[in-house]
Amino acid sequence: MDNNKPYVVGIDIGGTNTVFGVVDARGTILYSGSIKTGKHADVNDYVAELAKGLNAVIEQAGGHDKIKGIGVGAPNGNYFNGCIEFAANLPWKGKIPLAQLISEQVGGIPVSLTNDANAAAIGEMTYGAARGMKDFIMITLGTGVGSGIVIGGNLVYGHDGFAGELGHVIMRRHNGRVCGCGRHGCLEAYTSANGVARTAREYLEIRKDESVLREIDPDAITSKDVYDAAMKGDKIALEIFESTGAMLGEAFADFIAFSSPEAIILFGGLTKAGDLIMNPIKASLEKNILNAFAGKTKLLFSQLKESDAAVLGASALGWEAKEPTV
Amino acid sequence: MDNNKPYVVGIDIGGTNTVFGVVDARGTILYSGSIKTGKHADVNDYVAELAKGLNAVIEQAGGHDKIKGIGVGAPNGNYFNGCIEFAANLPWKGKIPLAQLISEQVGGIPVSLTNDANAAAIGEMTYGAARGMKDFIMITLGTGVGSGIVIGGNLVYGHDGFAGELGHVIMRRHNGRVCGCGRHGCLEAYTSANGVARTAREYLEIRKDESVLREIDPDAITSKDVYDAAMKGDKIALEIFESTGAMLGEAFADFIAFSSPEAIILFGGLTKAGDLIMNPIKASLEKNILNAFAGKTKLLFSQLKESDAAVLGASALGWEAKEPTV
Repeated sequence: MDNNKPYVVGIDIGGTNTVFGVVDARGTILYSGSIKTGKHADVNDYVAELAKGLNAVIEQAGGHDKIKGIGVGAPNGNYFNGCIEFAANLPWKGKIPLAQLISEQVGGIPVSLTNDANAAAIGEMTYGAARGMKDFIMITLGTGVGSGIVIGGNLVYGHDGFAGELGHVIMRRHNGRVCGCGRHGCLEAYTSANGVARTAREYLEIRKDESVLREIDPDAITSKDVYDAAMKGDKIALEIFESTGAMLGEAFADFIAFSSPEAIILFGGLTKAGDLIMNPIKASLEKNILNAFAGKTKLLFSQLKESDAAVLGASALGWEAKEPTV
Repeated sequence: MDNNKPYVVGIDIGGTNTVFGVVDARGTILYSGSIKTGKHADVNDYVAELAKGLNAVIEQAGGHDKIKGIGVGAPNGNYFNGCIEFAANLPWKGKIPLAQLISEQVGGIPVSLTNDANAAAIGEMTYGAARGMKDFIMITLGTGVGSGIVIGGNLVYGHDGFAGELGHVIMRRHNGRVCGCGRHGCLEAYTSANGVARTAREYLEIRKDESVLREIDPDAITSKDVYDAAMKGDKIALEIFESTGAMLGEAFADFIAFSSPEAIILFGGLTKAGDLIMNPIKASLEKNILNAFAGKTKLLFSQLKESDAAVLGASALGWEAKEPTV
């Protein structure tokens, strides 16, 4: 840490809100703010409003000289060029040089940008469960399934900046579910929050046994409903977590064959299910793992508070931010 | 390159032969030799004979002072500790500190050791098709299916030194073939030379159409026979290459989702089939790739001469060899 520049800024750009904060080296968010992401059709207007908020929290923290760098987590964020590229859930089309645009509005503080799952991985390595680890995989189980892969202490960006799409390895090559990506059988189509809700609808349709889930309009069922039902001991809900965890364990066995990580760390909404999801993952991983790797990789939950994690993750990138190259 | 130490030594330890050579910076094998791997039940006797051969070629090259380092490619070689660990096809059981044993017998020249597929990847990066690449995956299609993964210019060893077992990702989760690893449905069980021979036996049994392969005792069919038949236009043989390539393309799509490499480079006996295997891989990869990665990753054959590749690959490790840590 640079003692003269003790803080970083993290910016998490979501489809709805953009949240930002000034963060210290221990991972405490000192000052924070937020704006609506979708309010401005022109990205320059968005950046202008964001910069107003950023400059305000930076002043609170003692001014621009105190900030080592700014990290941004954004959908389709490309670390290599600091651009958001063709993000389906954001209002700005094409390739947006966001790191540069932001840097220009905050007195030239260097800005680094990557996607949200990569930011989560860096956050975990800097402040969370992966401190001291050089090889781990972060899996985010949210609306989708994302991943950030760290190898030898570095995030894996690949040759184009977009590596780490582990939600889109194919788990079911025959009669696989349609995925949002247009293909069939992706991990995400089964083990995301949406995937869990889909599994619930399938089970309820195919099976005849009782379930409290039958009281809900099938089209409205969420993974939260499945969780609530499982906590009440509902058999179908419990089996849904079993089969979701089983598939994750199968997938993790393949991931371990690739990079042999010290840990796989789970983050995101579904991890609130705790043992309900972790126990079947562990059992399935044990069953599916290649002998040479058996018992070597830890399965952990993220140690970052969910409300802070996105900003913390993005901020972690700020410690190593350099002038954006466009 | 250190001008005072212009050479490295490569040692390739196979189940049958151990081949070694002095190599210059351009990848030319200047002096070489070989011994039988299985001749000595005691590893110390093996190392003594090997050292005699090594010291002889090193003298030919101008003496020990000319050698920057020695690289060893060996089954189950662990880069981190320089040990061969529980190699099924070698006569020495348990954990053998081979890098150290060799170094002691060649006047303390530093020795680095890794497995054969990793050595092939480093060789390709140093002398072959991957020169200048920082992100690529080497797939060896031989008796088994091995892999060496390079990310950000570094070989991926994982936290335990054994990363890169891409022959053992699961491609068929239901009714998958038994693999040598004891599990079912591994890539290797289908797309290794043995896998191709198994596919031939399956096709010949299930199907009724004519094939020149029917003239061979099914148990004796090799991938070479399938290749020869395909070159004669044999329909079943051609379909075997089609289905083998198709599965490789499926697997590669998943590998690309992991590390987004600039290239996947194929090496080993099966690559002699050329377009027969490459064309179906390409077609299948195009069909299976996640949109964001479409058309970005090159599919290439190794540029190393097969007879030299193992020694060259191992030797490449010698350029960065350091004192072995045990």
